[in-house]
Amino acid sequence: MQNTKPRVSKATISRIPLYYRAVVQLQQEGVARIRSERLSEIIHIPSATIRRDFSSFGELGKSGYGYSIATLVEEFGQLLDVDSSEAIILVGVGGLGRALLMNNFRRNPDLNIVMAFDADPDKVNTRIGGIPVYPFATLAAHMNPNIHTAILAVPSSAQTGVIGTLEAFGINAIMTFAPQPVACAPQTTIRYIDLTSELQTLLYTAHQKMKVR
Amino acid sequence: MQNTKPRVSKATISRIPLYYRAVVQLQQEGVARIRSERLSEIIHIPSATIRRDFSSFGELGKSGYGYSIATLVEEFGQLLDVDSSEAIILVGVGGLGRALLMNNFRRNPDLNIVMAFDADPDKVNTRIGGIPVYPFATLAAHMNPNIHTAILAVPSSAQTGVIGTLEAFGINAIMTFAPQPVACAPQTTIRYIDLTSELQTLLYTAHQKMKVR
Repeated sequence: MQNTKPRVSKATISRIPLYYRAVVQLQQEGVARIRSERLSEIIHIPSATIRRDFSSFGELGKSGYGYSIATLVEEFGQLLDVDSSEAIILVGVGGLGRALLMNNFRRNPDLNIVMAFDADPDKVNTRIGGIPVYPFATLAAHMNPNIHTAILAVPSSAQTGVIGTLEAFGINAIMTFAPQPVACAPQTTIRYIDLTSELQTLLYTAHQKMKVR
Repeated sequence: MQNTKPRVSKATISRIPLYYRAVVQLQQEGVARIRSERLSEIIHIPSATIRRDFSSFGELGKSGYGYSIATLVEEFGQLLDVDSSEAIILVGVGGLGRALLMNNFRRNPDLNIVMAFDADPDKVNTRIGGIPVYPFATLAAHMNPNIHTAILAVPSSAQTGVIGTLEAFGINAIMTFAPQPVACAPQTTIRYIDLTSELQTLLYTAHQKMKVR
């Protein structure tokens, strides 16, 4: 084991992009140092959580003196590997897939959907938001060894088959909007975006808040 | 304080919809009892997490003997208030808003987008997926006291103003796709869906997994 850092929790990992975006913006505003209490006000995360998260990445600074923005940008940028641009494929160009193509993570120049696939003959061999849409059956012809990431916006019923095919062509990172968990190869990481669950969680939290008042 | 139950963590709350969906499906399949280890295999959450989560809601059963599916469906259904249908408004009918209207949470009959609003004159006074789209300026005329929930698919620049207006008309639960945190009233709950951060977290996790191998 070369890696001697402590294991970082999933919850902490999920906050890294938020931290990174905040410190980049602070750097652009000319801020040099920040204390956890001030950062907490900006990103709405408790300052104790921020200090605990930051300490889990090693020496990012002392909270009493404040953290160096330059150090935070550097460290979180390295963690997120932001200097290497990520080529992403999209599978499924229904309403949601089309919206993702039109937006194409324009807030982040390092994340690029480079091509899309669909099984519907009426949707393929076009461009949406400038991105070519190919028949899913021609995936093999379009893949290259630099592509490891896919976004899925396909019906749940199609998901298992699509993931198996993607794995066979070297995809190991998948973000999907079909929430039914799928068995995948050990080297594959799947992130499920479940908007129904997100909405239910919101409603639960909002109802609890109203009960307390 | 009437509520004597222990405080339930945010992470646990975010898993309730997932648990609920899984146990409803198991009930439909005729399963009567389930052990945490088996549930873990189905929903890809560690069995220790499942047991800890379940115990935080009181007596849901003994893990050695297995949990009663009927009890779990009943309890989680009550927690999520699934018997009361939720009328939701959508603000912003760009590509993403349009996709949400076309889908309209059809997996869950209790979640309904009942109307949509947009500031663009070219997009209003139409129906998308059967849902009427009104001018945002006419919000007051369309709101009623049963509507407390909104989904926002507006540009970040418009978000603060829109949230202030929604709050003034009784909305206290907001799910938004513009990730920049917004100051809101104490009674308002906002849930941010940040697809860029979700993708970055996925890539971080996938890269870590490849390093270990």
